[in-house]
Amino acid sequence: MTAKKFSETHTVPYYEGNITNHITLAMLLNIVILVSEHQNEILGVDHNELINNYGIGWVVTSYSIKINELPKIDQTIKLTTRGTSYNKYFAYREFWIENEDGEELVKIDSIWVLINEETRKVSPIDNDLIALYESENVKRLPRLPRPEKLGDELDSSKKYQVRINDIDFNGHVNNAHYMDWMLDVFSIDFITSHKPVQVDIRFENEVTYGSWVESSVKIEAMPDGLTKTVHRIDSGNEVSAIATIIWGDIK
Amino acid sequence: MTAKKFSETHTVPYYEGNITNHITLAMLLNIVILVSEHQNEILGVDHNELINNYGIGWVVTSYSIKINELPKIDQTIKLTTRGTSYNKYFAYREFWIENEDGEELVKIDSIWVLINEETRKVSPIDNDLIALYESENVKRLPRLPRPEKLGDELDSSKKYQVRINDIDFNGHVNNAHYMDWMLDVFSIDFITSHKPVQVDIRFENEVTYGSWVESSVKIEAMPDGLTKTVHRIDSGNEVSAIATIIWGDIK
Repeated sequence: MTAKKFSETHTVPYYEGNITNHITLAMLLNIVILVSEHQNEILGVDHNELINNYGIGWVVTSYSIKINELPKIDQTIKLTTRGTSYNKYFAYREFWIENEDGEELVKIDSIWVLINEETRKVSPIDNDLIALYESENVKRLPRLPRPEKLGDELDSSKKYQVRINDIDFNGHVNNAHYMDWMLDVFSIDFITSHKPVQVDIRFENEVTYGSWVESSVKIEAMPDGLTKTVHRIDSGNEVSAIATIIWGDIK
Repeated sequence: MTAKKFSETHTVPYYEGNITNHITLAMLLNIVILVSEHQNEILGVDHNELINNYGIGWVVTSYSIKINELPKIDQTIKLTTRGTSYNKYFAYREFWIENEDGEELVKIDSIWVLINEETRKVSPIDNDLIALYESENVKRLPRLPRPEKLGDELDSSKKYQVRINDIDFNGHVNNAHYMDWMLDVFSIDFITSHKPVQVDIRFENEVTYGSWVESSVKIEAMPDGLTKTVHRIDSGNEVSAIATIIWGDIK
């Protein structure tokens, strides 16, 4: 059995892009979350249903993002998603982004858990719920690449206070903002001379409104003109998120 | 003669909204700028054409926004715009946002200038360009309400550094970010117990990447359960933007 796919198109408005004329990585996460939520809606299990009837909600724990080419401002893209497989506590969801000729621009693998909205603890995945997606029940889910741990040696670090508009309708910080904090440590020169080709990100602990986070990065040259950047977001004494990004040169 | 109208629909995704379940004021400005740019495109004078052929670009100097009801997350709205009138240096553009029953949710009046991209100085409005909009040539444009000047007495103030993703494809700070800085000075309690009914904002001086801005506010009670907030964004010794917002209570 193969899980149900769901697709929709999206045209990238200027305000989802940045100086490179491409969509930001934060907005890339926002638009794929939107397509998954639209699939949930069609299956009758959107976030309101889950909270009101079960007191639970889906939360992403990690993404592995392979980028052939980031969508450009004004480009119309096709987004496809599938809730591919699951086990007792984790679900594996895939996303594909294609251009209008059907060429793959971005492929995203993601791991999700169901969280109890009151306790914020992981809740076992209900068989009736997941059956709607025709997901495959598996012993072992695919293991996404684990981002590297940042050592003590940093190239750059910046502090941010969580803003009122970083908080979503549920009162939580939208995960996409971690991506903005991670990328803001770079110079404009770095951003305009490099393009991300692989992003592995893992969310460890939630941050709350008003708290301060620190975004740190180490930049390392790799063979073949690639650059590796290792990221960590801390909040107080807790690690909030870690990521490894591989960048290509823009010729 | 009445100027040409242009309309399109927009469905508000979750990531354009905030904890109130309505679109943020920053995103409201983004989506109306998008509809005006789509009209420019259809008329063959989008921002690329203007920069490449004339070295100029449209810039908003002030908005006056009347809000009956802010669009909600997931709501589909109709956006309409018209380049109503102009004189030698200024153009007056109107926007209407309606719900699916044709009821007016938001009306926006805006004043624009053409800026020389190199000198950043105001450029006279070319008659051939504005003729495409069938705008009316007038002696006096409507005067938008002038936001109040903030005195020395402040209720709240926060500092922000311009981020890499605050910079658009032209290398400038998107005006919508001023709105986010202005609103972030409030508590969650204020934001969830008040709704904006009138916003008057005026942009004074541009800010650049990496610079720090300070967002300040004074909150005043008014008759009939209304609240007035007076805002100023400073960058160094310059005033970047000022605004007055009138809020109603949420019962």
